[in-house]
Amino acid sequence: MGSKTAARNAQDDGGRRDVYKGAMSSASPDLRTVHVDLEARAYDVLIGAGILGGLGDFLAAGTFREPVAIITDARVGALLGERTQNAVLAAGLSSFMIEVPPGEGSKSLEVLAHLHSRLARNKVPRSGTIVALGGGVIGDLAGFAAASYLRGIHFVQVPTTLLAMVDSSVGGKTGVNLPEGKNLVGAFHQPKFVVADLDALATLPPREFAAGMAEVIKYGAIADRALFDRVANGVTAEDDDLAEIVEKCVAIKARIVEHDEFETKGERALLNFGHTIGHAIEKATGYSRYLHGEAIALGLRAAAWLSVWESGLPEAEAKKIEAALLDNDLPLELDRKVDREAVLAALGNDKKVASDGGNRWVLLSKLGEAKSGCEISLEVAAKAIERLVA
Amino acid sequence: MGSKTAARNAQDDGGRRDVYKGAMSSASPDLRTVHVDLEARAYDVLIGAGILGGLGDFLAAGTFREPVAIITDARVGALLGERTQNAVLAAGLSSFMIEVPPGEGSKSLEVLAHLHSRLARNKVPRSGTIVALGGGVIGDLAGFAAASYLRGIHFVQVPTTLLAMVDSSVGGKTGVNLPEGKNLVGAFHQPKFVVADLDALATLPPREFAAGMAEVIKYGAIADRALFDRVANGVTAEDDDLAEIVEKCVAIKARIVEHDEFETKGERALLNFGHTIGHAIEKATGYSRYLHGEAIALGLRAAAWLSVWESGLPEAEAKKIEAALLDNDLPLELDRKVDREAVLAALGNDKKVASDGGNRWVLLSKLGEAKSGCEISLEVAAKAIERLVA
Repeated sequence: MGSKTAARNAQDDGGRRDVYKGAMSSASPDLRTVHVDLEARAYDVLIGAGILGGLGDFLAAGTFREPVAIITDARVGALLGERTQNAVLAAGLSSFMIEVPPGEGSKSLEVLAHLHSRLARNKVPRSGTIVALGGGVIGDLAGFAAASYLRGIHFVQVPTTLLAMVDSSVGGKTGVNLPEGKNLVGAFHQPKFVVADLDALATLPPREFAAGMAEVIKYGAIADRALFDRVANGVTAEDDDLAEIVEKCVAIKARIVEHDEFETKGERALLNFGHTIGHAIEKATGYSRYLHGEAIALGLRAAAWLSVWESGLPEAEAKKIEAALLDNDLPLELDRKVDREAVLAALGNDKKVASDGGNRWVLLSKLGEAKSGCEISLEVAAKAIERLVA
Repeated sequence: MGSKTAARNAQDDGGRRDVYKGAMSSASPDLRTVHVDLEARAYDVLIGAGILGGLGDFLAAGTFREPVAIITDARVGALLGERTQNAVLAAGLSSFMIEVPPGEGSKSLEVLAHLHSRLARNKVPRSGTIVALGGGVIGDLAGFAAASYLRGIHFVQVPTTLLAMVDSSVGGKTGVNLPEGKNLVGAFHQPKFVVADLDALATLPPREFAAGMAEVIKYGAIADRALFDRVANGVTAEDDDLAEIVEKCVAIKARIVEHDEFETKGERALLNFGHTIGHAIEKATGYSRYLHGEAIALGLRAAAWLSVWESGLPEAEAKKIEAALLDNDLPLELDRKVDREAVLAALGNDKKVASDGGNRWVLLSKLGEAKSGCEISLEVAAKAIERLVA
């Protein structure tokens, strides 16, 4: 496609980073930028404390048009909505806010239809912009609204949870759930840029911060031993090197997404380390008992032991993963009351509609090195799940 | 983007045409092929009488996977459903059919959700394929289902109306309507190939065939004087050169879409000649009085006179357009009972959310030559609308 789509987005390309830095130079000398090189759909992830105030300038520096629709949930909206809207208005862009109820329930076709209707009634044109202000649910929902309204409009991610900053806001996966399963409807729709303001993490409940750390530990485990060692002893929202940690995670994800944007080659599947059993646990517990990151923590522990049994991970390194989860206040043990048969059934079930086909099992050969497309029998998976029960 | 997305679709590229021709050589020596060169998203439009029977072979020649979900409406399904499904089954691919009610009402988020649910319950994987069997409504609806289910699966257009063959099945526009307006939600999602079996036109009510001729006349008017002259005296489903006429229209659309896939440069707007007032008439009459092609015929007549007044089209050529519409059994006159104020209001209203921005008015300088982005005052537009009233 090259030239044609390139022309569509050329205005959003090269030279933007300097603009961002110019816009932020006084406010935040520590602005970090990770470039996601997807040619015509390339963009930057901006990371720093207090950078949300620059959102309007970032928008104005681009070719984005008003009105700017800020989509958020009632909880985040109460904390950051006004500040976000003021940042947009201060740059001379008109803006309105749409709040949806907090929680996974908003990732539905019904709430999506409500967003479409609000966008249409506010006469947002194709050149308009959606800002997704919130965690993973808001990013996925607002991102798909942006992908589908008028066959696609501009879209900016403002992740407010650690999990969204290091994972869901980067890479262009958007979507909603069906009664039949999670994320079954959606689009690959890359944001125009991502603003990860670390100050937002100060407002996060400790349990939510810890949930995000599960993904951080995952990045270290699959791709960066030094990152793993750094975070293994525990990370808090106050740590001086938090920006550097987030930057490293985003850079790992960016490199993987660059090589496999549409998840067709197996590389993007590496990001699913710990997610196969994690997703099954979420499904078997009705998506209510564990936060996503907590279920992933359990999945990481199970995947560590699968890696010991099936791909030569030294036992000592599996124990390091367990210790890292523990030191970041993540659960190590699956509640006895959880029906393990249901977890196994969810694993089997998932297979047929799995968007990652045969690449679902990701194992480590050592800390910092992962491979996808591994074959694991249900018996061995069952053994790993039993390992989680105290 | 080039290489990355190219890799995603490389298996569907070059060499396919020979395969199609090989698959069809005995059945239809007259198979015509128009290539739509969108690089990684390139595809062929196959045109010929009786080629629907080759659908399974075309699918099997590609890398498409089962199950094949055939989406159609109850009317087309009764006529062509079994034949279509047999063609797929004969190639050894599993298949199931989803029927929706006929008519524009099915282009809704509610029917889309029903399709998503049926696809999920039938465990269609990301490598599965949707076949859109029907007219423009089915192509738009099933195309958007294919664009959004599992973030995008394969999709084949089997247009069964003249209008869908020459217009809506080519170019990748998919979508549904909102209560707030038509086509407000959708995606650009190109089909993997298009099968235009002219035999399907024999089952079409004459009024529907005529409606398709409005778009054919449009292609001649904007880009091909010889085509215009050929069709000006009237075309029927039995004409020997129908395949050639459809091929010429598709080729015109293909060249325009190749230069402006995402409708950002004004070229694609050329396809909207006659559509600005046509859409306003449809809106003002509740989308019930006129078929889309009939409203476009009225819009073409109005646009012809606007072209005389504003862009130097010779009056004799405007009259040729009127004669061509008449000789193809299309309406020339707007019913007196239609509220012209409502038509004008629809024109003004449309502006704000218009996906084609400032390029909405397309005028001719002579037959076969059009330009987009023209400025027309509401007063002059009103004069053109009055011209339609007997």
